[in-house]
Amino acid sequence: MTSKIKVAIFGGSGYGGSELLRILLFHPNVEIVLVTANEHAGKPVGVVHRNLNVLTDLVFEAAPNDLSTVDADVAFFALPHGQAISQIPQLPSRVMAIDLSGDFRIDDADVFKQFYKLNHAGEIQSKFVYGLTETNREAIKIAQYIANPGCFATATLLALAPMVKSGLLTGKVIVDSKTGSSGSGAKAAANTHHPQRMNSFYAYKPFTHQHVPEIEQHLRTVGAFENGLVFMTHSLPVSRGIFASCYMETTAQLSNEDLQNLYKHFYQDSFFVRWSDGSPDVNWVKNTNFCDVTAYSNGSQVVVFSAIDNLVKGAAGQAVQNMNLMFGLDEKTGLVFTGSNP
Amino acid sequence: MTSKIKVAIFGGSGYGGSELLRILLFHPNVEIVLVTANEHAGKPVGVVHRNLNVLTDLVFEAAPNDLSTVDADVAFFALPHGQAISQIPQLPSRVMAIDLSGDFRIDDADVFKQFYKLNHAGEIQSKFVYGLTETNREAIKIAQYIANPGCFATATLLALAPMVKSGLLTGKVIVDSKTGSSGSGAKAAANTHHPQRMNSFYAYKPFTHQHVPEIEQHLRTVGAFENGLVFMTHSLPVSRGIFASCYMETTAQLSNEDLQNLYKHFYQDSFFVRWSDGSPDVNWVKNTNFCDVTAYSNGSQVVVFSAIDNLVKGAAGQAVQNMNLMFGLDEKTGLVFTGSNP
Amino acid sequence: MTSKIKVAIFGGSGYGGSELLRILLFHPNVEIVLVTANEHAGKPVGVVHRNLNVLTDLVFEAAPNDLSTVDADVAFFALPHGQAISQIPQLPSRVMAIDLSGDFRIDDADVFKQFYKLNHAGEIQSKFVYGLTETNREAIKIAQYIANPGCFATATLLALAPMVKSGLLTGKVIVDSKTGSSGSGAKAAANTHHPQRMNSFYAYKPFTHQHVPEIEQHLRTVGAFENGLVFMTHSLPVSRGIFASCYMETTAQLSNEDLQNLYKHFYQDSFFVRWSDGSPDVNWVKNTNFCDVTAYSNGSQVVVFSAIDNLVKGAAGQAVQNMNLMFGLDEKTGLVFTGSNP
Amino acid sequence: MTSKIKVAIFGGSGYGGSELLRILLFHPNVEIVLVTANEHAGKPVGVVHRNLNVLTDLVFEAAPNDLSTVDADVAFFALPHGQAISQIPQLPSRVMAIDLSGDFRIDDADVFKQFYKLNHAGEIQSKFVYGLTETNREAIKIAQYIANPGCFATATLLALAPMVKSGLLTGKVIVDSKTGSSGSGAKAAANTHHPQRMNSFYAYKPFTHQHVPEIEQHLRTVGAFENGLVFMTHSLPVSRGIFASCYMETTAQLSNEDLQNLYKHFYQDSFFVRWSDGSPDVNWVKNTNFCDVTAYSNGSQVVVFSAIDNLVKGAAGQAVQNMNLMFGLDEKTGLVFTGSNP
Repeated sequence: MTSKIKVAIFGGSGYGGSELLRILLFHPNVEIVLVTANEHAGKPVGVVHRNLNVLTDLVFEAAPNDLSTVDADVAFFALPHGQAISQIPQLPSRVMAIDLSGDFRIDDADVFKQFYKLNHAGEIQSKFVYGLTETNREAIKIAQYIANPGCFATATLLALAPMVKSGLLTGKVIVDSKTGSSGSGAKAAANTHHPQRMNSFYAYKPFTHQHVPEIEQHLRTVGAFENGLVFMTHSLPVSRGIFASCYMETTAQLSNEDLQNLYKHFYQDSFFVRWSDGSPDVNWVKNTNFCDVTAYSNGSQVVVFSAIDNLVKGAAGQAVQNMNLMFGLDEKTGLVFTGSNP
Repeated sequence: MTSKIKVAIFGGSGYGGSELLRILLFHPNVEIVLVTANEHAGKPVGVVHRNLNVLTDLVFEAAPNDLSTVDADVAFFALPHGQAISQIPQLPSRVMAIDLSGDFRIDDADVFKQFYKLNHAGEIQSKFVYGLTETNREAIKIAQYIANPGCFATATLLALAPMVKSGLLTGKVIVDSKTGSSGSGAKAAANTHHPQRMNSFYAYKPFTHQHVPEIEQHLRTVGAFENGLVFMTHSLPVSRGIFASCYMETTAQLSNEDLQNLYKHFYQDSFFVRWSDGSPDVNWVKNTNFCDVTAYSNGSQVVVFSAIDNLVKGAAGQAVQNMNLMFGLDEKTGLVFTGSNP
Repeated sequence: MTSKIKVAIFGGSGYGGSELLRILLFHPNVEIVLVTANEHAGKPVGVVHRNLNVLTDLVFEAAPNDLSTVDADVAFFALPHGQAISQIPQLPSRVMAIDLSGDFRIDDADVFKQFYKLNHAGEIQSKFVYGLTETNREAIKIAQYIANPGCFATATLLALAPMVKSGLLTGKVIVDSKTGSSGSGAKAAANTHHPQRMNSFYAYKPFTHQHVPEIEQHLRTVGAFENGLVFMTHSLPVSRGIFASCYMETTAQLSNEDLQNLYKHFYQDSFFVRWSDGSPDVNWVKNTNFCDVTAYSNGSQVVVFSAIDNLVKGAAGQAVQNMNLMFGLDEKTGLVFTGSNP
Repeated sequence: MTSKIKVAIFGGSGYGGSELLRILLFHPNVEIVLVTANEHAGKPVGVVHRNLNVLTDLVFEAAPNDLSTVDADVAFFALPHGQAISQIPQLPSRVMAIDLSGDFRIDDADVFKQFYKLNHAGEIQSKFVYGLTETNREAIKIAQYIANPGCFATATLLALAPMVKSGLLTGKVIVDSKTGSSGSGAKAAANTHHPQRMNSFYAYKPFTHQHVPEIEQHLRTVGAFENGLVFMTHSLPVSRGIFASCYMETTAQLSNEDLQNLYKHFYQDSFFVRWSDGSPDVNWVKNTNFCDVTAYSNGSQVVVFSAIDNLVKGAAGQAVQNMNLMFGLDEKTGLVFTGSNP
């Protein structure tokens, strides 16, 4: 590749934007040409994200009022829900886009309105490809626009896809998922107030989380998935990490070895999904683009555990993985960094 | 009451023993006459448990070889699994006993052997009453010996008992439970090594946790419970707390209000079970004897959340609650202390 | 005592107020007659502070516009700096007051203005006694108004007072102090945002912390203290706790034993200051009114370490200790609760 | 460079070894030819360090009895104190060595014995260069053996070196330093037991830490340093990070701007030492090779704050930085990775 991919980042001050910067600054094929943050316009990136101090000369800019003049090959949107939906349509048609919000993840307008309290994108939605890399590679390669999956959805879908594809599921699937505090974003709030959060574990949004329709919609593209999903979200006192415990029943008696074979085969070409001997642990995937997964059987009862970093595989890392595919690169490019022990 | 209850504590150096001391030292009707810790024999309690420094003159003693000479009204056993089983039978018959280990929780000898790798207690088992206070008060009041419930079992049973009693359950119950690191005891171990544990969340013992038969056995005394339990344990990076998320289906369509009425009625005489508006949080029950519980319905699908402090309601606090009943005291005596915010 | 002390609490929704409630609800000689929280007026205390759920029927009230009608024996003020200064003068003269803010801690008007950016209280200041219980008991017993010490000031003063009284100090005293996140109060803020705070340690307010003049002013009442104080504050990723490391030089060569004797003698009648064999640890004093202290010498170089819970001995606990003295009670009344291990 | 540097790592299972692997596996000029871990011999590295799963095919080997057959260009030793001292002399003379333990940091045999309770290395000591890269580059470039600095020593020396070089210091320097739990190593121990450590802050080894003579010895090579050091170590409840607060007096009145100029000038060619506007925070340097530093003056009183990751700049990162210099590479090679926010 002779020239670099020109990248614009809309929303560079939140955690999604911060992670995009951390990854893309070191991506061998990328040049960041624009990074916006209205409240920090004019400030060096390294002053706001002090981890990046001395590592970049980039300065935050205010977002342009009109995106039709954006000069980039691809634009990442790491904005709160409801903003990209009106901005991406303004982009010149030559600019590809990857949206990290929920704005373009739901095809059904009524469902979207129910969960997001927003009007659906309408026609442009059909140009969006759902960016769960491991199950959607070929569509991603030729997509103009990507709806990058939600963090919970990523952990859950990677855990469930092999089982759904197998056609062996029966009955409802129950997913008990847990997220670290960075999932709430970079703005301080009551539920991330350290004196309490460090000793907390609690559930939230029972039966009503917006990732439910996203997960169900995508599972139906993977295989027959008709019996429904019970999905619960909980808050963990770690900074990074999502852990999903997925309970299901099968029509066949599966051994642990059967499960291992099923998963290893399904993910044989997926570098970033690692089979885990023993339970995954969010500690082992923090700061990485890996999803660790394992499964256990007790006859017809199966449990699958998966762990990701919500900001990397669950957001910025997967977004870059998708960008790599869109530009004909190896999907691993710029993403093979290790997490740490400890 | 004119004289105090003479209490002996076997195993005072672990977290169970530490909590018994913390509670019983301030119990208005108790005098501690013996506290053992072989590795600390001769050391003041306040030197080993520095939180108790200046609060007691008690000194740890070596456990006597022969318990037939123990002069106490009641003996608490906070020893590793497999020790009380041979010690409690040695006690003089006038000494009541409350065992915090799993040694006497399982009636079926084969099941016990399968999960604990130990020979069953045999005949003496019939003298043990299962000490889940809220569902077993009348039997506890007249018991000589108490098998104090496991921490996971307590959180799970208090969440499930009203539903099981209601007779409305259908299908399997799935319990996704999580515990803080103090559940692993006072001895340092790889899985509680701070540099990793502070960033960890992982599952353990899938399908094989020893609390499964304990929970099932007790649920069958509460109501019809025939469809089985799927029970998973996970490790949380808090010090104290168990949180159980319990998934079930009902034969009737229940509203959230129905559930609230059911639970409030079931626990109307149980001071230590609090209905929670919104999700329970381990933060709000830490250091207390409370179990916070709530339930949500989505038609026939129900989820119940419960939270306890594993060392208090899940161990030492419930043990003292049982002692209170055995000695004709109000079950709240010495246990109405608050947790803290934060 | 035949009747209970009627207590009003102004500012019951913050952490200071929350701790006052937690302690005073169980104080055998106290009846809480009023607790204010403007933003929560009408809400039960147990809904806002969920640790207190079922433990009290108190309901938050809006603060009265005019405090001259307050009917109480003593009023605690746990408001942000700058509010009590205009409110306490409105109280009927029969109502005693204990202020947990900094409003009445500094006698010198210019110094107060410099550090608090507020006008000094003026004449009424002379009615305030500085509430460091251990060094000021006799004055507190007969005081109408108490300026309760700052949390850092409490940890530092209890560490330094014996040395200052000894007259052996020479040169500057350097105090490196660290606080848990609850010291920032109950409102969420950037510096207590969990995803970052859990991995943080940093210094703040170098050379300019408002506790500096408070500490210096009080040390001058304890003994000769002329060489000045260098005082630095840092933020710790625990919820509760202050730890002060105090460096000083002495005119005499002191052994560790000399230091132990000096401190034990100075605090021989002070139940809540415990000599610590080995370093104090904020873990051992959390949720308690204790200050653990120890000292080491290397000839003429001395280091003193102290640890307190910032919300208890550093705020609400010490306030109640002072109230006890003002009403002729044993200073320990209602305050002898243990912290926990873990 | 046409061929890669052949690297051997002795002691690959601890945290120092784990970090060396994490860094060196991605170093563009390195090939790891041997990594030892006796208790894990035969196990894949990615099984022991699960963060490295799928990232390497390396397998741990038992350490050879005789190191004279080691075939490598450079050997890193990440063993407990007292092991490298007898092993490095066995290496073939062509093999360079970098020792991360304290075995070769102290020149004076008596001082070494006092602090390490070991016999001094003797003659071979003269071949060791102290590996504080920023102050010792020219010697490191031509060294055969490197004594890599201790983690506390690194944070302290980088904070103090500019002031010592300036010749402006007067009186003792007081350093209050704090370390994360990973500084205690990968083996579980009482002081890193999560249920207590997560709520702990305490001091240890007052006046006797083994980094004191290391710091003093090296400061005397930087400039006149005759008035002595008071150095205290404390334990922080983070996983990674050292923070040093350094108090000193100067013969001149320095402004904050003077200090900034002094430090920026001293480190103008040192990429990994970043001047920090506002206090450094261990959060911003975690997982990186950076040292963030700042300084404040109050006339003649100066405080300098520094923060590093104890396992990277305080151990494995600096070791690789030194290796780079020894092999004629840019010192940044393989080390320019970012930490993360959060």
